[in-house]
Amino acid sequence: MADAGRDIEALIEMMARLPGLGPRSARRAVLHLIKKRAVLLMPLADRMHAVAASVRECTVCGNIGTGDICDICADARRTTGEICVVEDVADLWAMERGQAFKGRYHVLGGTLSALESVGPEELRIPQLIARVRDEAIGEIILALNATVDGQTTAHYIADELEGTGVRVTSLAQGVPIGGELDYLDDGTISAALKARKGL
Amino acid sequence: MADAGRDIEALIEMMARLPGLGPRSARRAVLHLIKKRAVLLMPLADRMHAVAASVRECTVCGNIGTGDICDICADARRTTGEICVVEDVADLWAMERGQAFKGRYHVLGGTLSALESVGPEELRIPQLIARVRDEAIGEIILALNATVDGQTTAHYIADELEGTGVRVTSLAQGVPIGGELDYLDDGTISAALKARKGL
Repeated sequence: MADAGRDIEALIEMMARLPGLGPRSARRAVLHLIKKRAVLLMPLADRMHAVAASVRECTVCGNIGTGDICDICADARRTTGEICVVEDVADLWAMERGQAFKGRYHVLGGTLSALESVGPEELRIPQLIARVRDEAIGEIILALNATVDGQTTAHYIADELEGTGVRVTSLAQGVPIGGELDYLDDGTISAALKARKGL
Repeated sequence: MADAGRDIEALIEMMARLPGLGPRSARRAVLHLIKKRAVLLMPLADRMHAVAASVRECTVCGNIGTGDICDICADARRTTGEICVVEDVADLWAMERGQAFKGRYHVLGGTLSALESVGPEELRIPQLIARVRDEAIGEIILALNATVDGQTTAHYIADELEGTGVRVTSLAQGVPIGGELDYLDDGTISAALKARKGL
């Protein structure tokens, strides 16, 4: 690809490092962008610059936004007293798409992991404890992934909050809407059975 | 996602329109970029600007490069007298990865298509005819996709070049390296059988 110019090669390599893209799809994407230079490539580059310049982490919850306080923390219509704890901004967005939670969030920025030596200090857990103390929080909803690391983190947070009087809950486990039993793993089925409820 | 700021939303929408990315993978890619703002997002935006500013179509062959004449057309070590005709820059890159062709290229920019009303003038076919006349070309190798439109275009070009004395060939059809007969379509098998050769 020496013919394509060093800039193009470098652009393809950078795109290929994005999650969900490989070398082949990065090539296709870059060619597509180059073909529509004026309507796609330039505006995309401009938009990236704008985002890179304006985006920052919310000092309260760790969500991303364009100010020191994110739109959710700044939104007075949000219920106070409830914090939903998520691993990642992507999880926060997933919760928001569900439109079921009206409170505020706390983004940990990962999960505890002995293997990758991620401790509580790396995870914005001290900030969470401080918020529970300072914001008169009644309930902490742990919306962590149902993985080993996610659940370890959930238990650690629950332990840390013991004695503060705050109610600690976590998302229910069970059969996903539209899920077929035949395709579900044994763990999910047994969790759903244990948590069965009267109709 | 109103929380994420309009710039971020717009960036996700733009990324989602790239081939190979959908809304979900665009969100992941943008979050990844934002997390590594300094080392990924800014350099990527810079690189896109650089490419958008520098990239242009080769006036001879239609390949993309950073000058009026692309690196391949400008390369004196390339054999003259042979032109490999491809539909698209992506196909040119694929040929170059094969490292088997040492001549120059001609990028049509698509295929003839009655349905999408793409005629010869839209396709840089007149420029190809002119090159055959002006550059003392001995052989035109048609490396067009083995689709109906690709083959229609190949036949059209062969007809146009009749009487010019140039030899018109096309890529061989047959079993791909590593291909298993059981997974090949009937057309490929019968083409490979017809073109069989002695060992």
